[in-house]
This record gives sequence, structure tokens and C-alpha cells, in this order.
Amino acid sequence: MAPILLNCMENEHNDYIKQQVQVKNPYLDTMEEDILYHFSLSTKTHNLPEMFGDIKFVCVGGSANRMKAFAQFMHHELKLPGIPEDIKDICEGTDRYCMYKVGPVLSISHGMGVPSISIMLHELIKLLHHAQCRDVVLFRLGTSGGVGLAPGTVVITDKAVDYSFRPQFEQVVLGKVITRSTELDEGVANELLQCSSSQNIPTVIGNTMCTHDFYEGQGRLDGALCSFSHEEKLEYLRKAYEAGVRNIEMESTVFAAMCRVCGLKDRQKYTSVLSKNLQHAASFTKISVSS
Amino acid sequence: MAPILLNCMENEHNDYIKQQVQVKNPYLDTMEEDILYHFSLSTKTHNLPEMFGDIKFVCVGGSANRMKAFAQFMHHELKLPGIPEDIKDICEGTDRYCMYKVGPVLSISHGMGVPSISIMLHELIKLLHHAQCRDVVLFRLGTSGGVGLAPGTVVITDKAVDYSFRPQFEQVVLGKVITRSTELDEGVANELLQCSSSQNIPTVIGNTMCTHDFYEGQGRLDGALCSFSHEEKLEYLRKAYEAGVRNIEMESTVFAAMCRVCGLKDRQKYTSVLSKNLQHAASFTKISVSS
Repeated sequence: MAPILLNCMENEHNDYIKQQVQVKNPYLDTMEEDILYHFSLSTKTHNLPEMFGDIKFVCVGGSANRMKAFAQFMHHELKLPGIPEDIKDICEGTDRYCMYKVGPVLSISHGMGVPSISIMLHELIKLLHHAQCRDVVLFRLGTSGGVGLAPGTVVITDKAVDYSFRPQFEQVVLGKVITRSTELDEGVANELLQCSSSQNIPTVIGNTMCTHDFYEGQGRLDGALCSFSHEEKLEYLRKAYEAGVRNIEMESTVFAAMCRVCGLKDRQKYTSVLSKNLQHAASFTKISVSS
Repeated sequence: MAPILLNCMENEHNDYIKQQVQVKNPYLDTMEEDILYHFSLSTKTHNLPEMFGDIKFVCVGGSANRMKAFAQFMHHELKLPGIPEDIKDICEGTDRYCMYKVGPVLSISHGMGVPSISIMLHELIKLLHHAQCRDVVLFRLGTSGGVGLAPGTVVITDKAVDYSFRPQFEQVVLGKVITRSTELDEGVANELLQCSSSQNIPTVIGNTMCTHDFYEGQGRLDGALCSFSHEEKLEYLRKAYEAGVRNIEMESTVFAAMCRVCGLKDRQKYTSVLSKNLQHAASFTKISVSS
């Protein structure tokens, strides 16, 4: 298991959040019932503190199959009783997301793109709040396209940036665009880098660019639509590299922004741990990164 | 089966596209192999014309389970040989999307949100192109939140509009924002309305608003984040209603825009058929709408 995970479990890191996960919605606590629609869970039909109260780590990724494999891997690493293959999908009442609980670790899939992970994050943050979880650390694990890196390299996100390389996320609230910061803490990135280095995994810290489109948005020449040349594509990627971008994916900005908003602005170190992306530049597998 | 489907199959509608599905990418036909990554299909490993050459209707929706149920329903309606429950997922090599072929009908899931359906549409349009499909009609079926409508009402999209009620989709191409139209043809909407009316299904034609967020973007008061009042929410929805919006979902603008671009701008009637959204305002089931 990665040293950072062991360290957290032994409570040696006193700068992680030491209080309950917070929502930023004054209406929630006045509601008789809160239905987490896309998890097929509810405060009335499920005892969330009993089911999830001991959660300390949440690992999220796009693919349902991979997050199941990650949960099985964690089951093995944590030497828990029972058979890893028997782990049950907590969200089996819906096909929107999958969720597996392995001891203090929750493994959840979020689909592809900002809107899909955004729905999951709203309901996850509410779930952790209702379950009265404390000291929770959240990781996003995923595949991504590398920029100037060899396939297989792990990228630990320093800043999540948009298509113009700005560390911000634009959110529309009732028809008005508001901007949220996606800047993260340097300390935790360095700590994750040390974990990787100690296991000889090729790893860099860099900015992660988040796009809303896999083909035209990321400069691919093989989509159904392509209006640019190979040279124009390379020019855009060169500018991205100069701006510190080392990989491109489709979820990082809203992940960083939402964790930051809900992670108490005055607790930077918590925010940064909560918001770290740990990603391969290509051919990523969770197991190789997390072991 | 819905009359419009029967009509199309009998070739009584001469204004549907009579030519091959077109991509807008000059590089594609020069590629030795085109890998449709998220379908786990490729021009080298699969005989796409043989597998898909007879496709005439493509129905897409967010949920994998629902699109499987829709395929089984179509199997029954078309009186095809074999057992509906035995229908095989063509994309079983990946968990990104599910795809079922039932005679001339293809049923595909696309996940939630614009980026997720956008990836699917790029690969679907390429698949139809490689398979040399002709006269294809594409429908999106889905659930949505109604605006001023009773639950269960079907909304046939007139125009897909953004958070400011504009019939447009903003696409970032190599860091630059371009705007694509999402306007559709009135004729087909009226035809779909007649189908619904003849079967006593409560149905309206209206604008469909597409948001990138389920909670803050759609004015929900029960997300992890909520910074607005109940009155502000109602005011936004009132403005939406005045702008002709009758339902809200998360995929319609890119669906309309991409179909329009790839559907030959000078063939408006094709474009409009290709781009129609057929949606329930609430508690939608494919079967009740399509039967």
C-alpha cells in the first residue's frame, strides 16, 4: 500500500481535516428526507452513519469496472476477512454509478466528463455529511493523455486548469457564470511524489488540463469533426506544455473546485489533500499507482 | 410501434436523408485503422459494414439498463426471432457505453452530461460512416425535469437552448470557443406530436434547456452547494418558461449541434429528424413513449 495511505491511517498527519465533512447549503439540515438520487440511497431508507461513518478515504475514477477492481485490490491490501470477489455494489439500485466499501475506503465510479462527476460529488459530499464522517481524504484516480511525457508516467496534479490554462472552474448558477478556484497545495503533491519515487514509478508533478470534449477539445485528429491541422494541434499542445500542463483529462477542474469549496477555505492543507488528482499520462492502472 | 417509425421503414418519407452518414474530418479516410476507443470496436478488428450496414434508426439515452430494456422492447415490437433477453451488448469489451442491435435499430447508452454524450456521438457518427449506413434517423430519449408541466408529460424538443435560453452550443476547439447552432425543424416536431396524440400520451412541443450541472445549474435546493433562495430559483424558472423552455436536461445542445453539423446543413429536414429529442418531463419510460 502507498505510504501516504498508511500514514493517514496511523493519524501521523495532523494537518488533514479533523472535523466533519461540510456542505454549503443552509437548506439541507431542514429537509425531512435527503434522497441521493444517483446513488439510490436516502436518509430515510438507509442508516448512513452506520453504513459509512468509518470512511476515511474516498477514491473516485471514471470506469465502474476499474473502481471495482480497485476495491478488490484494497480488500486484499488491507487483509480484510472474506473474498474480494464478493464485494457488493452499494449502488446496485441504479446504473448511474458504482460504489464499493472496503473497510475505511470507499471506491466510486463517476463516468466521463465534468457534469457526470459533478452529480456524483454533490451526492458524495452530502453522504459524508449525513454519515458524520471525519478526517476524510478524497483522491481522483484516472487515465489521461500525456503532454510531453512517456506513456505510463504518473502525473500528480499541481493545479487543475481550463482550456486557456487558467486555474479556475466556471460554474453556471441560475444562469449566471461564477468562477471558482482550482489551485491546490504544493506540500501534498510533493508527498505523493515521494511515495511514487520510493517505488520507482515514473512520476511528475504538473498541471492537469480539463476539457469538455475528448476529440476537438483535446486536439485529436480522429474525431467525427476536425477542422484544424496537425501543425495547429501541435502548436496548442506546445502552449499547454509551456503553461505547465503535463496531462489532459475531463474532470479535474470541478473536482478541485468542489473539494475546495466544501473543504473549508481556511484549511488549505485539507483542501489540497482532498483535491489531489493522481493520474497516469497513459495506460494507467489503479493498482500500479496505488501499490 | 410508433407510426413515425413504421412510416420511415416503409420509405414513405422521402425527405429523410438518402445518402451516407457524413463525417467532417478530412483525415479519417487516410487512416489505416480507426479505433472507436469507447465502443471497443475498430475498422481493422471488426467488419463494420457487415455488422451495422442495415441500421436505419439509432436511439440513444443516458442509462445502460434503460437502453437494454428499450432494445428488448424493440425486439418484441419488431417480432424478431429469438428471445429478447438474449440480446448481447456489442460494447461488452468496455464499460463506457452499452450498445444493442435489434434489426435495423441500434440502442446505445451515453452516460450523463454533454462531454459523455459528445464522445459517444463522435464514435457513433464515425461508425455509421465506416459502415456505409444510409437514411439513418437518430433519436435521443431521456428523462428530464419539467418546467410548468405535469409529471409524465412528454416534451418533444423544438429548440435545444443553453442556460441563457439561446439556441446554441459553445464548443472549445484548440482553446478557442466556437458557437454551433442547435435550431431544429418544426415539421418533424409536429409529426412526432401527432404520433403521441394518436395514442393519448400527454405531449407538448417546447424548448429544452441543457445545463452542465444537475444541482446549482438547474436551481435545485438540495445539492451539497446552494447559494440561492427559493424565490431566486422560481424567478429563473419563470424566465425559462417565458423563453419557451418546457424541460431541462443535460445533453440536448451538443446532440442537436453535432447532428446538425454532420447532417449536411443544406438538408434541413434530415437535420431536424436526426436531431429530435423525445423526452418525458418526469418519470419517463422509453416503452411508454415509443409504443
